[in-house]
Amino acid sequence: MTDQPERTMTGAEALVSTLADHGVSACFANPGTSEMHLVTALDHEPRIHSVLCLFEGVATGAADGYARVSGGPAMTLLHLGAGYLNGGANIHNARRAWTPMVNVIGDHAVPHQRYDAPLASDIRGMAGPNSVWIKSADTAATAGELAAEAWEASLAPISGPAALILPADTAWLEGGKPGRKRARPSLRAPDAARVEAAAKAIKGASKPMILINGTALTEAGLATAARLKAAGVRVMTDTFFPRQARGAGRFIPDRMQYFAEGAMTDLEGCDLMLVAGTQVPVAFFAYPGKPSVLVPEGCTPMIIGGPESDSAAILEALADALGAKEAAPMATLEQPGLPSGGLNAVAVGQSIARHMPEGTFVSDDAVSNGLPTFLMTQKARPHDWMQLTGGAIGQGMPLALGAAVAAKDRKVLCLTGDGAAMYTNQALWSMAREGANVVTVVFVNHSYRILNIELARTGAGNPGPTAKSMLELDQPEIDWVALSKSLGVPAVAVDTAEAFDKALERAFAAEGPQLIAAHVPAR
Amino acid sequence: MTDQPERTMTGAEALVSTLADHGVSACFANPGTSEMHLVTALDHEPRIHSVLCLFEGVATGAADGYARVSGGPAMTLLHLGAGYLNGGANIHNARRAWTPMVNVIGDHAVPHQRYDAPLASDIRGMAGPNSVWIKSADTAATAGELAAEAWEASLAPISGPAALILPADTAWLEGGKPGRKRARPSLRAPDAARVEAAAKAIKGASKPMILINGTALTEAGLATAARLKAAGVRVMTDTFFPRQARGAGRFIPDRMQYFAEGAMTDLEGCDLMLVAGTQVPVAFFAYPGKPSVLVPEGCTPMIIGGPESDSAAILEALADALGAKEAAPMATLEQPGLPSGGLNAVAVGQSIARHMPEGTFVSDDAVSNGLPTFLMTQKARPHDWMQLTGGAIGQGMPLALGAAVAAKDRKVLCLTGDGAAMYTNQALWSMAREGANVVTVVFVNHSYRILNIELARTGAGNPGPTAKSMLELDQPEIDWVALSKSLGVPAVAVDTAEAFDKALERAFAAEGPQLIAAHVPAR
Repeated sequence: MTDQPERTMTGAEALVSTLADHGVSACFANPGTSEMHLVTALDHEPRIHSVLCLFEGVATGAADGYARVSGGPAMTLLHLGAGYLNGGANIHNARRAWTPMVNVIGDHAVPHQRYDAPLASDIRGMAGPNSVWIKSADTAATAGELAAEAWEASLAPISGPAALILPADTAWLEGGKPGRKRARPSLRAPDAARVEAAAKAIKGASKPMILINGTALTEAGLATAARLKAAGVRVMTDTFFPRQARGAGRFIPDRMQYFAEGAMTDLEGCDLMLVAGTQVPVAFFAYPGKPSVLVPEGCTPMIIGGPESDSAAILEALADALGAKEAAPMATLEQPGLPSGGLNAVAVGQSIARHMPEGTFVSDDAVSNGLPTFLMTQKARPHDWMQLTGGAIGQGMPLALGAAVAAKDRKVLCLTGDGAAMYTNQALWSMAREGANVVTVVFVNHSYRILNIELARTGAGNPGPTAKSMLELDQPEIDWVALSKSLGVPAVAVDTAEAFDKALERAFAAEGPQLIAAHVPAR
Repeated sequence: MTDQPERTMTGAEALVSTLADHGVSACFANPGTSEMHLVTALDHEPRIHSVLCLFEGVATGAADGYARVSGGPAMTLLHLGAGYLNGGANIHNARRAWTPMVNVIGDHAVPHQRYDAPLASDIRGMAGPNSVWIKSADTAATAGELAAEAWEASLAPISGPAALILPADTAWLEGGKPGRKRARPSLRAPDAARVEAAAKAIKGASKPMILINGTALTEAGLATAARLKAAGVRVMTDTFFPRQARGAGRFIPDRMQYFAEGAMTDLEGCDLMLVAGTQVPVAFFAYPGKPSVLVPEGCTPMIIGGPESDSAAILEALADALGAKEAAPMATLEQPGLPSGGLNAVAVGQSIARHMPEGTFVSDDAVSNGLPTFLMTQKARPHDWMQLTGGAIGQGMPLALGAAVAAKDRKVLCLTGDGAAMYTNQALWSMAREGANVVTVVFVNHSYRILNIELARTGAGNPGPTAKSMLELDQPEIDWVALSKSLGVPAVAVDTAEAFDKALERAFAAEGPQLIAAHVPAR
């Protein structure tokens, strides 16, 4: 027996090492005074790579991208309630993508909290609504255990952002202990009775469909979906999903339309809507006189499993129950010719299909230019497509940053509107700092183009000068090349299809981040 | 009698026209689909000038600046809960400045709210903590009245940000009615008994002081403070205040030191601390073994009136009760000579004192470079100094934008750290769009310099490579001139005192926004 002294650690060290024990390998951080001991603890933890972000919305969006690629949560480091608020919109988006994430929010030292110092705020109140779990580690002794609990809670029962508040004195005091090691929670297995009922309902339906999300959108999940398709079940994904395997060799599902009236026309005659890995579909926004729930008259929705479930396993159980042996065909590689003429999203999509390397992760925050590029890349080389699920634009570049940190051997393609990219342009700086292999395509139309479309759809009348000026970004025009270079990312601007094609080919061939300002028409 | 039909208006029109009836003349907006009818309503309201902001933190910071200059609230237009979160940090700051503000937060149409659409969130939960008032206008008939109530609540009993949630169907439906016109609420008048007790306590104290904020920091309030000073009462402001009249002809109060140990040394021997227009002072952050409350041993704090009170009136009542007829001297104009050599915050302050026109509003988010410039400009031409009160950096440029919109005939000087400016760099674009007369000085040290200081103070140990890399912004260095120009604001970079002096003189002489990247040492 040796008389070895017990290892001592601060609360901050216990928190950080416990997360590392659970496989967390990245921390996206924007620290402040109250987080100094966390920063020091990160210094002593070689298993976690710290990425400095100059705005918290970059940190939280990057943590989302990291998790979508790696499957596990990253850690963020946010500076009190104000830091949480800055990161809040991309946490909202992450919650809507069921993305696991451990947000560590610094707070004042416990004895200081009663004094209502200037940076004090009701962190639990503000962070609660978009967190699947929220606790404060008020003593050094609990910091490690709560870190393990936060990690576990971010993955089950419904995965999403967990919030662990860390008072400054918990961080600096000794007495920290590693948290008990948890096994990774599994997604919920299929419910046999529901699967059986669904199979029976399919046999009785004249036009059945299944709406899928989650693991059903992996390569394996989609291969099973192809069996359902061959058995006469229409397969459709949510309009927006966290990640979908696409391209050559993968089954191409349909996609729920964004606008309610389009979706309803598309679904006409459908008399059975099965749901696996998601929820019954609703319109993104309400409009005067238009439907909210996207289930046609006479159609029965039937939830086999929600977002907590392993939807790929549900598809397999269902295909087996139907005795579905055949599978609908997979996509075959199609390489479009060189596009020519004026630049638009279709031409951009063609060039992507020509040049995007196998295994690319696509981060899509392209708003009105997203759908054409999506459609043009269905038969490109195999890749994964990640979307903005929560509607808070400004996620594209941060998500791409996080994806690149998680998959250093892959390329990441970021598609973003100019309006969207302005929210979190600070992401470019972190891409440069990390040498992230991200090719960013900014669709520059100097406009919130989607809002011009929406203004007409909401029946808000003919826009006058004020309304018009609130939807246009052309006074002044933003110089995206200069902006990108100022933050360390090489950039070019193009306005023809030919020039874009060449720029994209070069950008994919280069090391480190690249930006292409793709000037496209606003109308 | 005529048979005129009653005027019809939508809920959105009722809201907007009611705010205009109450003197609101600016709306800082970042709208989305659910706000399209509000945008149309703003089209029909010539009394309100709409300013498009490309990130909500710019909108809320600008509303704060507008209110500090004009004395009344501006309206913001935010896109659901996610838009609120993006604007949240500068709303936190505004609450800590007791700034009146009416945040109009769009929401889903009431019948759509039950479906948990992607952009749905618990707006009340998230916005509640930093709002002095929060309600949802769930019918068109109530929108006008609630707008009037929100305006009133933003001003009393304690002024601050009010949150008015506007569901999309309330905005688009007819049936709106103007809200009842309210009179502007007054600040609370001095409590005679407390003033009398304070006067008595002063007479019995050996080293009395009074801590002031609010209207006590106006030119008139400070003139009264000078009478107290002459009567033997030390006059001190909070470390951070929303606005202070300064320069030639104004009384110069002391200022509470930022670091707790400095403040306590400075206050040594003080046996009476009166408080008018603010709260008992507390340290900004807690540090191991350092005090939280900044009241020395043996000193009695006595609150004459909190932030809800008219502190200038308190000073006057107190000076009268003391029979204070004399006044301490006011500042006399001092114009420093041309500074020379390497550039630093002292040299910057000297040049400001040389060239800043009378009546300038200064927006100070300069963090570690703030104090030297503040001290060097005490005897400059008369001006007003506005500070970051809530500690969430990234307020400086938005605040300056709002101040410029409110005071078109004045110059605004924005002092900001490079780290701070990155949070809300989108403000530059709105400055360009509005032709705002803002001269922005970015202190470029490629570092979160304050955090290097804080790292040492918190005793977090010698920083290793990770910690160091989390506090430095030098990989890559941000090109502030290119960044500023990309967003439409002319800019120059300087690194000597002489060059800065010339650049500042030129910038003040120019029309519209200008930016100077002032390269200063990081240590």
